[in-house]
Amino acid sequence: MNIEQLLGDLQAGRISLEEAKAGLQDWRSAGSMDFAELDLDRERRTGFPEVIYGESKTAEQISAIFRRMMEHSDRVLATRVSEGKAESIRSDVPEAEYHPIARTLSWHRNKPQYAPDEDYVAVVCAGTSDLPVAEEAAVTAEMLGCRVERIFDVGVAGIHRLFRRLELIRGAQAVVAVAGMEGALASVLAGLVERPVVAVPTSVGYGANFQGMAALLAMINACAPGIAVVNIDNGFGAGYYAALIQQNRKG
Amino acid sequence: MNIEQLLGDLQAGRISLEEAKAGLQDWRSAGSMDFAELDLDRERRTGFPEVIYGESKTAEQISAIFRRMMEHSDRVLATRVSEGKAESIRSDVPEAEYHPIARTLSWHRNKPQYAPDEDYVAVVCAGTSDLPVAEEAAVTAEMLGCRVERIFDVGVAGIHRLFRRLELIRGAQAVVAVAGMEGALASVLAGLVERPVVAVPTSVGYGANFQGMAALLAMINACAPGIAVVNIDNGFGAGYYAALIQQNRKG
Amino acid sequence: MNIEQLLGDLQAGRISLEEAKAGLQDWRSAGSMDFAELDLDRERRTGFPEVIYGESKTAEQISAIFRRMMEHSDRVLATRVSEGKAESIRSDVPEAEYHPIARTLSWHRNKPQYAPDEDYVAVVCAGTSDLPVAEEAAVTAEMLGCRVERIFDVGVAGIHRLFRRLELIRGAQAVVAVAGMEGALASVLAGLVERPVVAVPTSVGYGANFQGMAALLAMINACAPGIAVVNIDNGFGAGYYAALIQQNRKG
Amino acid sequence: MNIEQLLGDLQAGRISLEEAKAGLQDWRSAGSMDFAELDLDRERRTGFPEVIYGESKTAEQISAIFRRMMEHSDRVLATRVSEGKAESIRSDVPEAEYHPIARTLSWHRNKPQYAPDEDYVAVVCAGTSDLPVAEEAAVTAEMLGCRVERIFDVGVAGIHRLFRRLELIRGAQAVVAVAGMEGALASVLAGLVERPVVAVPTSVGYGANFQGMAALLAMINACAPGIAVVNIDNGFGAGYYAALIQQNRKG
Amino acid sequence: MNIEQLLGDLQAGRISLEEAKAGLQDWRSAGSMDFAELDLDRERRTGFPEVIYGESKTAEQISAIFRRMMEHSDRVLATRVSEGKAESIRSDVPEAEYHPIARTLSWHRNKPQYAPDEDYVAVVCAGTSDLPVAEEAAVTAEMLGCRVERIFDVGVAGIHRLFRRLELIRGAQAVVAVAGMEGALASVLAGLVERPVVAVPTSVGYGANFQGMAALLAMINACAPGIAVVNIDNGFGAGYYAALIQQNRKG
Amino acid sequence: MNIEQLLGDLQAGRISLEEAKAGLQDWRSAGSMDFAELDLDRERRTGFPEVIYGESKTAEQISAIFRRMMEHSDRVLATRVSEGKAESIRSDVPEAEYHPIARTLSWHRNKPQYAPDEDYVAVVCAGTSDLPVAEEAAVTAEMLGCRVERIFDVGVAGIHRLFRRLELIRGAQAVVAVAGMEGALASVLAGLVERPVVAVPTSVGYGANFQGMAALLAMINACAPGIAVVNIDNGFGAGYYAALIQQNRKG
Amino acid sequence: MNIEQLLGDLQAGRISLEEAKAGLQDWRSAGSMDFAELDLDRERRTGFPEVIYGESKTAEQISAIFRRMMEHSDRVLATRVSEGKAESIRSDVPEAEYHPIARTLSWHRNKPQYAPDEDYVAVVCAGTSDLPVAEEAAVTAEMLGCRVERIFDVGVAGIHRLFRRLELIRGAQAVVAVAGMEGALASVLAGLVERPVVAVPTSVGYGANFQGMAALLAMINACAPGIAVVNIDNGFGAGYYAALIQQNRKG
Amino acid sequence: MNIEQLLGDLQAGRISLEEAKAGLQDWRSAGSMDFAELDLDRERRTGFPEVIYGESKTAEQISAIFRRMMEHSDRVLATRVSEGKAESIRSDVPEAEYHPIARTLSWHRNKPQYAPDEDYVAVVCAGTSDLPVAEEAAVTAEMLGCRVERIFDVGVAGIHRLFRRLELIRGAQAVVAVAGMEGALASVLAGLVERPVVAVPTSVGYGANFQGMAALLAMINACAPGIAVVNIDNGFGAGYYAALIQQNRKG
Repeated sequence: MNIEQLLGDLQAGRISLEEAKAGLQDWRSAGSMDFAELDLDRERRTGFPEVIYGESKTAEQISAIFRRMMEHSDRVLATRVSEGKAESIRSDVPEAEYHPIARTLSWHRNKPQYAPDEDYVAVVCAGTSDLPVAEEAAVTAEMLGCRVERIFDVGVAGIHRLFRRLELIRGAQAVVAVAGMEGALASVLAGLVERPVVAVPTSVGYGANFQGMAALLAMINACAPGIAVVNIDNGFGAGYYAALIQQNRKG
Repeated sequence: MNIEQLLGDLQAGRISLEEAKAGLQDWRSAGSMDFAELDLDRERRTGFPEVIYGESKTAEQISAIFRRMMEHSDRVLATRVSEGKAESIRSDVPEAEYHPIARTLSWHRNKPQYAPDEDYVAVVCAGTSDLPVAEEAAVTAEMLGCRVERIFDVGVAGIHRLFRRLELIRGAQAVVAVAGMEGALASVLAGLVERPVVAVPTSVGYGANFQGMAALLAMINACAPGIAVVNIDNGFGAGYYAALIQQNRKG
Repeated sequence: MNIEQLLGDLQAGRISLEEAKAGLQDWRSAGSMDFAELDLDRERRTGFPEVIYGESKTAEQISAIFRRMMEHSDRVLATRVSEGKAESIRSDVPEAEYHPIARTLSWHRNKPQYAPDEDYVAVVCAGTSDLPVAEEAAVTAEMLGCRVERIFDVGVAGIHRLFRRLELIRGAQAVVAVAGMEGALASVLAGLVERPVVAVPTSVGYGANFQGMAALLAMINACAPGIAVVNIDNGFGAGYYAALIQQNRKG
Repeated sequence: MNIEQLLGDLQAGRISLEEAKAGLQDWRSAGSMDFAELDLDRERRTGFPEVIYGESKTAEQISAIFRRMMEHSDRVLATRVSEGKAESIRSDVPEAEYHPIARTLSWHRNKPQYAPDEDYVAVVCAGTSDLPVAEEAAVTAEMLGCRVERIFDVGVAGIHRLFRRLELIRGAQAVVAVAGMEGALASVLAGLVERPVVAVPTSVGYGANFQGMAALLAMINACAPGIAVVNIDNGFGAGYYAALIQQNRKG
Repeated sequence: MNIEQLLGDLQAGRISLEEAKAGLQDWRSAGSMDFAELDLDRERRTGFPEVIYGESKTAEQISAIFRRMMEHSDRVLATRVSEGKAESIRSDVPEAEYHPIARTLSWHRNKPQYAPDEDYVAVVCAGTSDLPVAEEAAVTAEMLGCRVERIFDVGVAGIHRLFRRLELIRGAQAVVAVAGMEGALASVLAGLVERPVVAVPTSVGYGANFQGMAALLAMINACAPGIAVVNIDNGFGAGYYAALIQQNRKG
Repeated sequence: MNIEQLLGDLQAGRISLEEAKAGLQDWRSAGSMDFAELDLDRERRTGFPEVIYGESKTAEQISAIFRRMMEHSDRVLATRVSEGKAESIRSDVPEAEYHPIARTLSWHRNKPQYAPDEDYVAVVCAGTSDLPVAEEAAVTAEMLGCRVERIFDVGVAGIHRLFRRLELIRGAQAVVAVAGMEGALASVLAGLVERPVVAVPTSVGYGANFQGMAALLAMINACAPGIAVVNIDNGFGAGYYAALIQQNRKG
Repeated sequence: MNIEQLLGDLQAGRISLEEAKAGLQDWRSAGSMDFAELDLDRERRTGFPEVIYGESKTAEQISAIFRRMMEHSDRVLATRVSEGKAESIRSDVPEAEYHPIARTLSWHRNKPQYAPDEDYVAVVCAGTSDLPVAEEAAVTAEMLGCRVERIFDVGVAGIHRLFRRLELIRGAQAVVAVAGMEGALASVLAGLVERPVVAVPTSVGYGANFQGMAALLAMINACAPGIAVVNIDNGFGAGYYAALIQQNRKG
Repeated sequence: MNIEQLLGDLQAGRISLEEAKAGLQDWRSAGSMDFAELDLDRERRTGFPEVIYGESKTAEQISAIFRRMMEHSDRVLATRVSEGKAESIRSDVPEAEYHPIARTLSWHRNKPQYAPDEDYVAVVCAGTSDLPVAEEAAVTAEMLGCRVERIFDVGVAGIHRLFRRLELIRGAQAVVAVAGMEGALASVLAGLVERPVVAVPTSVGYGANFQGMAALLAMINACAPGIAVVNIDNGFGAGYYAALIQQNRKG
């Protein structure tokens, strides 16, 4: 249903106040479930459907929401889905694809195709322990239609590894920088590339790391401009943000 | 001097190792001053010349660096310049323009011109106390060649004020959201627009606000995606970041 | 026993100092158990009997206290009771009703009845993960004799969902706002309703959320007035507080 | 102008879309000033006009806003106004009344009158250093039409002083508890009265007090229910909240 | 061996330098074990033998140290001993007595006897959840030869319970105040008694309690003098300290 | 007036309820002043009159309270009195003695006299910057009738200085240990003496010292027992506490 | 392959640009594995090969990396390897030696031999709970070719134990000081020795210790110079650092 | 006086106990001043005389201590001396040399001379705002007899500036890395050099920098080994530590 048309009809007298109310009621109830108010309108408003945050939901809840969203959208993404839950969900929703490192479940009606010279998002990470967060970012950006280049394990303790890959990183439309411990990778990247860096602190580390707070503070205080930060371990948020930047280009 | 040509000449045997070293020496010393190593090469690397952070520098230092950068670049920006310092600097560098609310000094060789339907960055702020930070963001984005729309004093305590201006905000290529206290403006905006939101917490507030830390934490924890955060009061960083996103569009 | 009468009798010489002491002893020992000094007088002093905080007590202890309180009061409430404990307690106290989402055990001698136009408390929550805290608030307010309207899953990431239910929220005598992550729901509500908002931060979130501290700080720093805050995940405290406000109305 | 009537007229066809737009424009611009978007509609929405937070505004700005609000409302309140600013403002707005301890400027068209047995709000504070915050709470509640009883300097270091005044406190509709240092006054009061306690931590203290954070944490963790907390030193917020509770009674 | 006599002998020429060295070597090696340097001299220096902190030691280690200390001292105490470890240790050291609530193992050669009017330490605690810490304090003080009076479950949420027991508390030589949540009990006691209060914050609480940090800060900031604080959950430290104060009396 | 006699008279019928009320009123009003409720009964309850905390009071207020307390007590102490205020107060109250390092004003009707072998409190401090806090502790203990030995500038960076004075420290009834920076002095002392150590962290330090928080945490976590802690820079509290311990001895 | 020779060949025209690129490709791929970019060049750059941080890696991953590094280096070290993982790895890599307390796996082609008067690193720790961290430091320093003296269980609660071993500590080239709780051992050592102290805070402690943060802050604020700090529980980092200092001596 | 000889004399009976005491008294009083116990023995113990921390001392106090130390040592250093104090001190002690950027006063009997190929300490800093701390480190190391190379303004925002100077840095015996904001310079250096890096976080920055805490945490969490950290802004401590490492080399 088209909500703007309905309101125009009301003003034009084509429908009565009662009819308008009833129409609104229908439109609204399409998003109601027992345990959650789905925001099915979100795609229209912000360009992407609501994402299912799997951490605090049961496999049954995720399955039900996933199915419902498949009816209303062309692509669905669930994050923070453990291997156990994923197995159970995929017996209900076999169309969904599971990415074990990224811990995501995804589906789209038509797989995107990329031209060889297509713009891309670079996802860069410091160490192997940062992989799950980096993969979550990469999968998310792919779900939003971006080509993604992965440049992993290039932390500043051996900075030459980063320099070897620099050309590939500089060619991206947006750079996601994933790092734990002291998070210096993001600062160094921001000084080296001319595109926006989306920094993701991870909770990798110990001691005075405070589950990623040290990396978050370092990234927020980066001396180079061209860097903005999302929450600790929020690979999804970073991939989403990079895709927003990149899609601008395509528009 | 073209550093790539020099290296090519070395490989081709057109210059000796000695000549190469001497050439590099010249190129490098162009950026050396008594109190600072200017990063004159930065514009080539990242698309924008180094910015002068005025807080911890004397008027004399700012003047000298400003002048030097005018010789090497088409635009210069100094931030966190108090009214007193600005007056003294402008007697040395009368070409520089001072923005008293944003506390910035700027200059560009040729003022940019905008078409009426030019893309723009929206700078949105919550309260009048957030104005200096918001203006710093706006001036910075303008310096980088962006048209800017200012939407000020639309905090969530009176959310209808925000809704009145929503169309203008949704039309932007990137949205800078500036807010102190609990910083809820950024979350609300991220749920309403489909373009990237660059959130700037400000130190406006008191008590358990911790000089902006409450707003920073709120923004980092925003439940809507499409939001990334810069440091507290870092209007410059946000304007810079928004311009990077927007310039993508133009390229 | 009436303690004021006893003291009056002492003054009037109707009882001796010895008799007064003995009477006080009886009155006092009614509240003594092996492992806890029950505050049976609390209902007279503050209008509501002591509530049993189940987290750190064994099922046996909860059963014993629950039973003892049923003899001295018309209603009993135990919070933070796990499903396992609840099952064991209900074999001892079958009259008690268990609310699995709210994790509460409750009993009252006579169930309250509400008129259709009865005043009510609105309990509003942001996401499905906030449900246990919101339900604890709702059950508590009901135990204290309030009609409760539940408005769940209306977080600010999709603010239109909140606006759809706004009329119902604005009709309440007091509004409990339950939210984790950045806690912006409470600020937004405080700007929209004219009744007191009791804000409950929840520990829902991750990374720089610090188990609810980000939400607590945001709520304490809310720019709109008309909002006060209870402890993280303290649904009981919020329901209790809202009931105190609402009962004022009825008195 | 009545905004609801305007919208009804639009639907009924009594005015054109153009006329509606123009009318909205007028209504909106009534709240526009150079440096601030006044929320003149706030009183209708939440029952009380916006309050002027004086801390970060010049005397000239406060004067201008104050005057403008006097035209649209029956009462105006400015908080955090230093003695110096107040003097300067009162030369422009001689009708405004200054309360030097509370540091507030207030005005109402018609002074409220109270019956001798009128309900009241009790404002209780722990030490003489807490007086400015307590007075700000008291003046605010009075501005909102409440009778206020002040019970000052009754901290728990000499708890008998509190017990002497207990009857007066217990008779109130709502109790504002103002305390710095360890903030124990609020907990103790919550265990003794049956009405809602609005707790205000103050920044009074030193060392590991962290400008009131110790008191805030203590109040948020109070073991007695019936207590909710506002920001450190936020006397205004507490007085406002207590008045919301009390007005419920009168409605 | 008497170390002072040895040094006197050296000065007086009664023993050679070699003999002195050898004697010191013997004295020192008495305290050496494979995994720990026992501080057997501690009793002489500070009046009480080293206490075994059981948390991070195996049952075998505790048994071995316990046995060794029984040979050198008249009393031995081990704290933080779980029920499981205790059982295993007591099969090796059946003389040791286990206190399951306090989680301590203790032994003394001759049980102390108290006269009916003997001075005493009062151990006061706020809630039943604080019992383990309070009992650890009580058992420790008893181990050091003090008579102890226990006054439990008298938190400030029902302050009349505290007042009923006030006379007993005021009669003590030192008062240990154990409380979690907001820790107000310690402040209130310090305002009511004239003997030193040793405050022990406990980790009882949730949310913004930070595992006892809220109570610790409250106690450190107590507005009444006559109060000093030990670490969170450090019942042993508080009982030890109170005994030091009390023994002063007896000396 | 004797409040216990009055209550006995009421019970015995020697006075009427009216007379009792009037008597209580008189007794109570003796402690009332315009800006403060003096706690003149405190001395009876806790053994020492209320102390005037000068930091947040004007010279006039301190003078007035000081004078009033001289009428009701044999000794008066005001702390945190700046040199400027002290001069002004002493023109009103020339009997008061000012200690410029401790920043205290004190008076007692009859100066205490000590026997040569009198028990004493040892006040030990780490560096010259800790002197004001150490002196505040010393003056306070003297005001409460204790002989005090000062052992200053014996921090652990040169631990031999401490050992030279160890005998004097070990002879004390109670030891006040004052230290900033890492506060290790208190731990070391607690391992060396057999009397209670009252530890005072000071705000001396910089960087990650957090105005004394590093020292406070170190002292609270001391591995040796026999140590309890007061607030940062709270020399008064430590001197008071040590005097409570010492007076036990004399009683 | 020698990378410098390759570049020299390029300049001299001995190889073509294509050949240079290919050569670089080979050199680079030697360090590539599926899940990690090994930094095989690290030894040349910094004098020691990359160390395997075992915490977040599977036994299979550690085995594979360990084997690969054995081919390229003369010594290999893996830290934070649990007993379970170690057993599994040693079935693949039987040459590796496991140190159960230090939780390290190590291997070197030729065991180092020490002269009796060889310089040494002293590893000093405060309590038995600090042993794993101290052993990790000792094993690491030994892996880097240093002789190590262990001085364990000499915390400041019994400072005489430290003094007994002082001569041995003072003879070291570098001193690693490992301590939890209040971390005072490091300060005391820094005041007593003339060689650099590398301080390692451990997470041993409870309550307001914050998993080692209290010790870290104490060490960072040490009043004696000659002390620098590594991360909490970072025995590896401290051993590595001490070896760097010591090797200087030998060079 | 030789303290060991005195003790030997006592043992040998060459002097009486009385004479020994008197001798000790003399030796001790040489270090006593009215306001400070000088640690004149420190040089013997730790290789360097006590340094005067000027921040909290008056010009008179610094002058007096400086003069006294000139009599007992060959070199004297005072840090944190403001320009104003320095001027006043130098009128008393004209031999002292003032370094205005480092804010130090220094003197040595004989200026050190360096051979051209002398080992050196590298002091590296990130930005011009870090200069005072870097200079304090450099001057301190020079005072301890080290040749120092200064490499300033080479922060990671323009990392090529660092690489240009890398050879000089890698040639040092120890590297002091001074950086504020996110402190990434220290991590990057530790990955590039094979000598120990002494990291100094500075308080340069704003917002979520927390006066250098962000840089401190980043440095403590550095992913590369070979790095240890001193307190925020503690240039003196870093220079001292680097000199200890370097002197090892020379010995």
